[in-house]
Amino acid sequence: MSVIILGHKSPDTDSVTAAIAFAELQKALGVDAVPGRQGELNPETALVLEKFGYAAPELVTDVSGRKYMLVDHSDIKQAPDNWDQGELMAIVDHHKIGDITTGNPIFFCAMPVGCTGTVLYKLYTDLYKKPIPEKVAGLMLSAILSDTVLFKSATCTPDDKAAAEALAKIAGISDMMAWGMEMAKAKSAVEGVAPRDLIFRDYKDFDMGGKTVGIGQLELVSLDLVADMKDALYAEMEKVKAEGNRHSVFLMLTDIMKEGTELLAATDDPGVVDKAFGTALQGRSVWLDGVMSRKKQMVPPLQKAFGA
Amino acid sequence: MSVIILGHKSPDTDSVTAAIAFAELQKALGVDAVPGRQGELNPETALVLEKFGYAAPELVTDVSGRKYMLVDHSDIKQAPDNWDQGELMAIVDHHKIGDITTGNPIFFCAMPVGCTGTVLYKLYTDLYKKPIPEKVAGLMLSAILSDTVLFKSATCTPDDKAAAEALAKIAGISDMMAWGMEMAKAKSAVEGVAPRDLIFRDYKDFDMGGKTVGIGQLELVSLDLVADMKDALYAEMEKVKAEGNRHSVFLMLTDIMKEGTELLAATDDPGVVDKAFGTALQGRSVWLDGVMSRKKQMVPPLQKAFGA
Repeated sequence: MSVIILGHKSPDTDSVTAAIAFAELQKALGVDAVPGRQGELNPETALVLEKFGYAAPELVTDVSGRKYMLVDHSDIKQAPDNWDQGELMAIVDHHKIGDITTGNPIFFCAMPVGCTGTVLYKLYTDLYKKPIPEKVAGLMLSAILSDTVLFKSATCTPDDKAAAEALAKIAGISDMMAWGMEMAKAKSAVEGVAPRDLIFRDYKDFDMGGKTVGIGQLELVSLDLVADMKDALYAEMEKVKAEGNRHSVFLMLTDIMKEGTELLAATDDPGVVDKAFGTALQGRSVWLDGVMSRKKQMVPPLQKAFGA
Repeated sequence: MSVIILGHKSPDTDSVTAAIAFAELQKALGVDAVPGRQGELNPETALVLEKFGYAAPELVTDVSGRKYMLVDHSDIKQAPDNWDQGELMAIVDHHKIGDITTGNPIFFCAMPVGCTGTVLYKLYTDLYKKPIPEKVAGLMLSAILSDTVLFKSATCTPDDKAAAEALAKIAGISDMMAWGMEMAKAKSAVEGVAPRDLIFRDYKDFDMGGKTVGIGQLELVSLDLVADMKDALYAEMEKVKAEGNRHSVFLMLTDIMKEGTELLAATDDPGVVDKAFGTALQGRSVWLDGVMSRKKQMVPPLQKAFGA
């Protein structure tokens, strides 16, 4: 059976495209690998796959008895539930080092850059010296534009920009910023979507000081898009919090044009927001100017506040 | 203060030389880094440093408040005791993925090869494209010869051989096997060494199913060298076991010419050896033919036997 390659739960564009791109690289290296995904495609990812002519990878949530590889995470909470019942072969990531362990040596490559696509670009080009197929380059470029919010995110590094420029050339995309805005608009699509689906569109659970803390994020070209939905979103966040025995559920409403985030908080301890960001909640939310990255600007201060 | 780079506790040649080689690479990349070590040099490592003109790196066992990088391990039990009081910046390794986690994204590169020196060779040559200084190449070559037991170990891969050949050229070592035998003889030096020091010469504690299991290894050109010392070694192993509240302490007496290991076992559950290796202890020891690698042939079956 083929080695299955999976991004994290509630997959985003990076997780889905990295699974495809890493599978292509593995095949070039002689490994029989196929991409998978742990959940539904968001509208941005669907647009990206359509543009470059890819079908949605197979939905896989069970890796027991299978060989598998992970991209875009190394956290147990974001891996398939029975991750320890299969054989993990490799990890490629750009996040903090998570709590997945193995019994045998494996390939694990993480770099502190803005996107798994950038790490994969270096693996293709520098480490394994394999040509990147045109369509695969398009996927990796799209992931970089998405994860770095068109290079505006605090997570964006010079390596991400350099990789994006090289990939745009290979993919034959002459105006990558225009393509990035098209993606951002697709990502902003909220009309007619159930609040629950919006919360889980780009959602991750974290272990913070022994407590489960969920953080969702919606990247929007304008917060006006969700102005009428906040009550419904908040009510659903309270449900998600209660169901999962979570300490807190946060939803980042990130305005990619104004470059900041309105943070909605359903939490057992509202003081934790003040402790983490130096700004207290006003009712159920607070505006965090300049905050666009969950990974770099939300998770570390929250983990500190939780004493993790 | 400089970034300190450390291998594992009870450092071997790979841990010490990888700290030096990775520090040189970091300096070439503009990072102010210095190598350190967590313990005393073994006779082989002392010989290697002398041959290539290096002093012993600084002894560092406390990283609180310091920036640091780890080489040759990613396990909490092998890291400095207060690893979580400093800021971990990078990991380069070739073992199983351990339980060290971070709050921020960092560089983490592990590959399933026989030696950290081989991973560093790829980082120098392929990823960062920096020239390897002649003496650094000598260190890295020596680590590969040591860790792969002159390419005989089950952990040895074609990548290790290719790296060793390239490094021998850079270092100007025309007969690397002769140099490897010279190192092996130095590693075999046991005369006049206290049993405790022999146990800890190349020793690691592991968490196996919640129990602490220590595994030391002596690589010897002949088991005759320790024939008269087994009673004393065993008595000391029992002490080490009691002191550390360990479930088991194993000592691998590895005959690198006969390519096998006499395993001494001080354990609360002698049956675990049969369970792991399909061969029961005869008294306090058993011969395991073909077993030379702790990482690949001891740890995985033991972890399985412990249900970890």
